Amino acid sequence: MKNSKPTSRRQMLRIGAATIGGGLLGQKAEAAETPGKLGTPLGPYGDRSQYEKAVRWTRQSRTPETGSSFTPLADSVGTLTPSSLHYERHHSGIPDIDPAKHRLVIHGMVDRPVSLSVADIRRLPSITRIMVLECGGNSGSEWASTTGADVQRSFGLVSCSEWTGVSLALLLKEAGVKPGASWMIAEGADACRMMRSVPLAKALDDALIAYGQNGEALRPAQGYPMRLLLPGWEGNTNVKWLHSLKLTDQAYMARDETAKYSDLMPDGKARIFTYGMEAKSVITFPSGGQTLPGPGTYELTGLAWSGAGRIERVDITLDGGKTWTNARLQEPRLPIAWTRFRLPWRFDGREAVIASRATDETGYVQPTRDALIAVRGANSGYHFNGMKFWRVRADGTVTNVEV
Amino acid sequence: MKNSKPTSRRQMLRIGAATIGGGLLGQKAEAAETPGKLGTPLGPYGDRSQYEKAVRWTRQSRTPETGSSFTPLADSVGTLTPSSLHYERHHSGIPDIDPAKHRLVIHGMVDRPVSLSVADIRRLPSITRIMVLECGGNSGSEWASTTGADVQRSFGLVSCSEWTGVSLALLLKEAGVKPGASWMIAEGADACRMMRSVPLAKALDDALIAYGQNGEALRPAQGYPMRLLLPGWEGNTNVKWLHSLKLTDQAYMARDETAKYSDLMPDGKARIFTYGMEAKSVITFPSGGQTLPGPGTYELTGLAWSGAGRIERVDITLDGGKTWTNARLQEPRLPIAWTRFRLPWRFDGREAVIASRATDETGYVQPTRDALIAVRGANSGYHFNGMKFWRVRADGTVTNVEV
Repeated sequence: MKNSKPTSRRQMLRIGAATIGGGLLGQKAEAAETPGKLGTPLGPYGDRSQYEKAVRWTRQSRTPETGSSFTPLADSVGTLTPSSLHYERHHSGIPDIDPAKHRLVIHGMVDRPVSLSVADIRRLPSITRIMVLECGGNSGSEWASTTGADVQRSFGLVSCSEWTGVSLALLLKEAGVKPGASWMIAEGADACRMMRSVPLAKALDDALIAYGQNGEALRPAQGYPMRLLLPGWEGNTNVKWLHSLKLTDQAYMARDETAKYSDLMPDGKARIFTYGMEAKSVITFPSGGQTLPGPGTYELTGLAWSGAGRIERVDITLDGGKTWTNARLQEPRLPIAWTRFRLPWRFDGREAVIASRATDETGYVQPTRDALIAVRGANSGYHFNGMKFWRVRADGTVTNVEV
Repeated sequence: MKNSKPTSRRQMLRIGAATIGGGLLGQKAEAAETPGKLGTPLGPYGDRSQYEKAVRWTRQSRTPETGSSFTPLADSVGTLTPSSLHYERHHSGIPDIDPAKHRLVIHGMVDRPVSLSVADIRRLPSITRIMVLECGGNSGSEWASTTGADVQRSFGLVSCSEWTGVSLALLLKEAGVKPGASWMIAEGADACRMMRSVPLAKALDDALIAYGQNGEALRPAQGYPMRLLLPGWEGNTNVKWLHSLKLTDQAYMARDETAKYSDLMPDGKARIFTYGMEAKSVITFPSGGQTLPGPGTYELTGLAWSGAGRIERVDITLDGGKTWTNARLQEPRLPIAWTRFRLPWRFDGREAVIASRATDETGYVQPTRDALIAVRGANSGYHFNGMKFWRVRADGTVTNVEV
């Protein structure tokens, strides 16, 4: 098999099984070493194995309350992120909120201001959906260069959880939106009072007030006891520790939509309120920093998502973009959720330059980095969704393409 | 609204919003108390809020390595179980296995015995699916009486996770099944060497060797580094810490399919190899041990699942079984996964006797306890899937129907 002309999926599957099984033919079948004594007792709240070491990576900072921590995507399996490993982007640390004291206030241009406790909200009709959250600044360092050393540090400000909460439209209907209201100012209960302006149309469309994450209460680092969820919009607008929604007739031009989270274009002007996250994908195996133990068959795999809906297809190149082959997509493909893609792949000991390219249900195709920069320049730190190329060297080491 | 004649869902939603919002009209809109200082810094591996206390409940035992711990279903939200709260049923404790030393051996009536490391298996084509696991003994105490005090202790030996692994059929194809092989003996690497006989047809159908759970490696309490998954079959057959699969031409009649996990019928004979878990559901709110703060509108909710496929509908009774109304089902409804059901419900301060009744895609309808006992007697401790009735008293307390 040549990299430039991959065999069909069916053929590759056969190669895969034969390669691995074949290497073991004739080995003496013997059971694993096992403990000779009783194991750990049953317990109230479980933990992971002592042999599992994946953690979030945090960029060094003099104020560890303000920064980002990155999901270890290379260690992810399936289509969800364990809550303990969900990416973080905080502006004044994680507040310790007693849910019995917390309230969500809906006020401003409404007929009937309301103040809701967590218990009030949990009595209302609820909705569950699996959904990606991605920081608007994810992969921001890729604008300047493609030297992101691994998939965690270059693409790790994205995670996928099952969220449960209440339709914001239901709450706004109860409060009664006054004529002329067109914006909603969402504010968090963290020390910096993180604030974002949200067009009322989005608030009335598919916004959620979420209190559940992956089958339990929302985690503190993701906004306990409740957060705003704006499906498909940059993470920062999904205000955590939500305590105030104020309806207005204008945006607030808050710090986090002017000094930050706006996109500096080549002509020196800035795009603002660039909410939607476009289709994106990245190969998580093999990816930067990993080493293949040798030639043979592997499962190439990664994650694709789009703020605009479902992932329709993912193509893989093994030859630096000259030819592409269609990856298998994990079903069900849910809108605005991670879609795991997979391709059996034979590493024959020759260098391969690999990347993935996502297409979403709107027909949008993930661009190359060059195509993205041609339009938006390289001044921005936000909304980078270019393809990520990895170089698999002949010795099995994997790096970014600059190394 | 009378319990015996529920209003339509549309009407109930309106009541819901109006009741809760209405009680807050005129309240002064004020933001929650917030911390005046920076919160907790970013961290490598997150934890839940100090205010969240849900834990697994363990029946007292002199050997805490052998027993069951129960998922706190009343605290669950959405359709997944956090891995830390997945139910446990161990027969000799949780072994501490170094994945670098673990192997899965496939031997017996095969052409080519194979011995696979965890790394070998992770190179093969993988599959992800969200799936329920339920202990064959879940709700076993309900055979004798309906006095299970709460939903955790009476129905909590069931959990739902996202699993990732490799098709067992692929591995068996590689090993080469010899003519005449008809059974597979699966054995765990725990101290008791838990062993179950599995018909080869199931192994070749949809069985998985799972190494991933909810986006990370399988947890030790669920079989790290790998376990067998037999979709829809009683938990015990999904052998944890899997280290040996031996193909044979007969079942082994192992301890856990003769002394245990067989069903004693009224005539004194036992059903054996009763693998499939039938359709089942239970209301988690309101449920035993909870107290409603007063009359008003609530979201009645619970979980339904079936080992035979998708949940097709869930009906709710509020009057002890006289009349039934159709609950809203969370989409997507995945086969052999939890389906969350919901119904807006007005508690008017009069006693209500409530239950849920699941129907799966095969048309199977969850029976009453009486109907189940009429066929199978009350000698068994396994495969109870009768409806669970809760009594909501006029004072808002919720109990089982015997209290």
